Amino acid sequence: MPYTLKEIADFIGAELHGDPACRVDSVASLAQARNGQLTFLGNSRLSRLLPESRASAVILSASEQPRCRTNALVSGNPYVAYVKAAQLLHPPPGFMPGVDANAVVHETARIAPSAFVGPCAVIGERVRIASDAYIGPGSIIGDDVEIGRGSRLVAGVTLCHGSVLGERVLLHPGVVIGADGFGLANDAGTWLKIPQLGRVVVGNDVEIGANTAIDRGALEDTVIEDGVKIDNLVQIGHNVRVGAHTAIAGCAVIAGSVTIGRRCMIGGASALSGHIEIADDVVITGMSGVPNSITQAGTYSSGVPVMENPTWRRNMVRLKHLDELARQVRRLEQALALVQTRLDAGE
Amino acid sequence: MPYTLKEIADFIGAELHGDPACRVDSVASLAQARNGQLTFLGNSRLSRLLPESRASAVILSASEQPRCRTNALVSGNPYVAYVKAAQLLHPPPGFMPGVDANAVVHETARIAPSAFVGPCAVIGERVRIASDAYIGPGSIIGDDVEIGRGSRLVAGVTLCHGSVLGERVLLHPGVVIGADGFGLANDAGTWLKIPQLGRVVVGNDVEIGANTAIDRGALEDTVIEDGVKIDNLVQIGHNVRVGAHTAIAGCAVIAGSVTIGRRCMIGGASALSGHIEIADDVVITGMSGVPNSITQAGTYSSGVPVMENPTWRRNMVRLKHLDELARQVRRLEQALALVQTRLDAGE
Amino acid sequence: MPYTLKEIADFIGAELHGDPACRVDSVASLAQARNGQLTFLGNSRLSRLLPESRASAVILSASEQPRCRTNALVSGNPYVAYVKAAQLLHPPPGFMPGVDANAVVHETARIAPSAFVGPCAVIGERVRIASDAYIGPGSIIGDDVEIGRGSRLVAGVTLCHGSVLGERVLLHPGVVIGADGFGLANDAGTWLKIPQLGRVVVGNDVEIGANTAIDRGALEDTVIEDGVKIDNLVQIGHNVRVGAHTAIAGCAVIAGSVTIGRRCMIGGASALSGHIEIADDVVITGMSGVPNSITQAGTYSSGVPVMENPTWRRNMVRLKHLDELARQVRRLEQALALVQTRLDAGE
Repeated sequence: MPYTLKEIADFIGAELHGDPACRVDSVASLAQARNGQLTFLGNSRLSRLLPESRASAVILSASEQPRCRTNALVSGNPYVAYVKAAQLLHPPPGFMPGVDANAVVHETARIAPSAFVGPCAVIGERVRIASDAYIGPGSIIGDDVEIGRGSRLVAGVTLCHGSVLGERVLLHPGVVIGADGFGLANDAGTWLKIPQLGRVVVGNDVEIGANTAIDRGALEDTVIEDGVKIDNLVQIGHNVRVGAHTAIAGCAVIAGSVTIGRRCMIGGASALSGHIEIADDVVITGMSGVPNSITQAGTYSSGVPVMENPTWRRNMVRLKHLDELARQVRRLEQALALVQTRLDAGE
Repeated sequence: MPYTLKEIADFIGAELHGDPACRVDSVASLAQARNGQLTFLGNSRLSRLLPESRASAVILSASEQPRCRTNALVSGNPYVAYVKAAQLLHPPPGFMPGVDANAVVHETARIAPSAFVGPCAVIGERVRIASDAYIGPGSIIGDDVEIGRGSRLVAGVTLCHGSVLGERVLLHPGVVIGADGFGLANDAGTWLKIPQLGRVVVGNDVEIGANTAIDRGALEDTVIEDGVKIDNLVQIGHNVRVGAHTAIAGCAVIAGSVTIGRRCMIGGASALSGHIEIADDVVITGMSGVPNSITQAGTYSSGVPVMENPTWRRNMVRLKHLDELARQVRRLEQALALVQTRLDAGE
Repeated sequence: MPYTLKEIADFIGAELHGDPACRVDSVASLAQARNGQLTFLGNSRLSRLLPESRASAVILSASEQPRCRTNALVSGNPYVAYVKAAQLLHPPPGFMPGVDANAVVHETARIAPSAFVGPCAVIGERVRIASDAYIGPGSIIGDDVEIGRGSRLVAGVTLCHGSVLGERVLLHPGVVIGADGFGLANDAGTWLKIPQLGRVVVGNDVEIGANTAIDRGALEDTVIEDGVKIDNLVQIGHNVRVGAHTAIAGCAVIAGSVTIGRRCMIGGASALSGHIEIADDVVITGMSGVPNSITQAGTYSSGVPVMENPTWRRNMVRLKHLDELARQVRRLEQALALVQTRLDAGE
């Protein structure tokens, strides 16, 4: 849907240099944008591309504006301004409200007239689906689930009984929310299942990626606070609490009963051990292992970077004996001190 | 469903101190339990909460009983006794037997009258579903699958052709059993697919978590023995055998042709390389890499714990040169020995 | 389906020693094969089993042939020859063309008469499904998707809008292609969603394992080139390009905007950081972390192998102080040099 540059400038709070009536209908990268498209310059390393851009308009910082030969939208934060413009030009797909004839909806479910339920979706007993919600095809909604206004389950999402979603929650295909936590007690060599009686409660404006699983609490609830963003194939155990506006990248593993603070960033393929607490504003870089609580904001890491294979082999053999090496160094230090003493004594 | 304390004490084998006719209907944590609920004290660090508990009854050890001001159920293993009581008070949800009108069942499938098949489930040719089994909505059961008595596929589970489930198997949403293993042969730079002709055979009392995948065998079967418990997002390759009562935590990766013993515990995000054997009673802690067979029971680890990012950066640079460091230390040791010799010789 | 040894020898390009009219109907391992079956000897460690094999024929190398007491198919590459014979004897299951009565197909979709659409599959607007394609039960195909000739979606596969599959693509259950990439911009502490406008384009002869997720591009496309093989539970971020004939093992994580070359092998549970390039013919062994580009073909590793737990504990404490240890060694070296100088000076 096309907008004028005047409309876009007003929406994103940018200063327009150029033709306010010029219309753009989509965004593209600086190198690929053509006439009728909007682009941005967020990184000065790309400013050499600016003079040749065929875009109808470029979002950029004031310092870059003199080199721009087309319409310019000057912003203090060109990247954020660009994202807002992209959201305006590319809204989520609309839908016709209503329950598809091939959906299976229990008679006790309450579905807002403005909501959509797709084909082969199954809606359980006493489910409540609020206005403007979109339940994509093949989604399965267990009994007593609540789905807030404007939430969107793209397709093939499973919400187990009692799960609660806030407003504008976006769930990608294959997400499973509210499966039983991994709660087991060992009884003389066999495992007893601990009934998982809590729920999963998801706040507003949460996005969860494809095939991610979030388990229900054992006794109390698993809680995902407002604005949390979770990537694909992430595992979140029972009783976890993820603080508001925290982001968790792909294939991270959050074991049971972990509490993560607000505005944290958890890198991909990281693993947090059970029953620990992570403070607000903690950054865990990718592939890190976190065995203990982190009480101070900051950046933490433990991923081991690749080496050429023969080097790695030699180093790993040494790593297995690192404690011995450190003791050997300590002994050397002591022996050398003795030598120095003897030498000082004029032996 | 409420039970009297007498009934519960008998069921869990505990000694009742208090009112045998008192009824409880659910369990809760020591801090949260209220009147009508049962709780437990499993950890002496929480015994300070005992006097204030508002629970109707507490399961605890004999040594804690004197401080209990409400009904007490004294057990030698309060935690296991609690889990048994929780199972009694919170059984899995019941269901009305029958095949939902929106299920799609092949005419050659044999489904016990006491079993349930939910809406949008698809049941293939010659499938056999035993009594009291529950096939949740959206589950897809391939041809020639056998599902044992009392097994429960919560929702959206896929069992590929020929898979065999024992009795009381519990599969959470998104589980995929029997997809082709990753069997490839390199033919002058391109990959040839090796037909995957085995099955997956799952024993009794196995639980498998959300979005976990277990591949069929290449020639023989992939086998999950009785009582195995597998968490979410676990990958189990072709030809793997997992021994009875082993537990595997979230996001672990078991490569092809691995044999794991009985009563092992495989930590979350661990990875086992292909074609190795793990003895009985082995514990692998979280995020460990296991490149070779483990022949002795015991606990094994290799996860690297996080450090503050600048420290990590410095240490990783050194790790890349660890072998050189060890050689340097050896040379120092030799040089120092020479110095000592010279000093002893009175040079 | 049975074939004569003459037919098989011709198909796989092997030299037949024995009865050309002998028929076999299936393959099995050397130890398990019986009369009527074909097996192979690919590994000289198993040649002791050769004389006792009850197989009707064995594929083997010329040097092993003298010890073979049954029909022999001599090949320069017995393993590849075996795989070709197994493909001949065990083709993928056939199917009756047509759209199942319980599928939900949009009126604007174009489905070839020789294709199959299974029960509870949902086909969106303007979808194009080519000849001989198989869309298994419960699969969900978004708007404007194209599926090439002979591709097979086993069951429960989700293709989001605009995804493109080539010919003979094989997708296992739970695969999600084209979900939004994890594109976020931080706006004063909250996350703005960056619209994900690219597609996923998958080449010919690609196989993708159960519950793997491949995200659509942000502005341009995510591309999986011809002949790529991807295992289960793999995460591939937005804008990634995977070069032809590369294989990626289970639970690997490829972050956004990574370019992987041709004929690479990425080990299981490995993680590649965003915005890096991997050259052609690179092998990454399992559980490795790749933070930077790799510009040279070769084998690279960083997985840490398990140790007994007490050893690991001691070594990890030392690893946290490895930089200090290296500095300590440097100081020792300097102090020793000084001692040597004093000694040489005859102090």
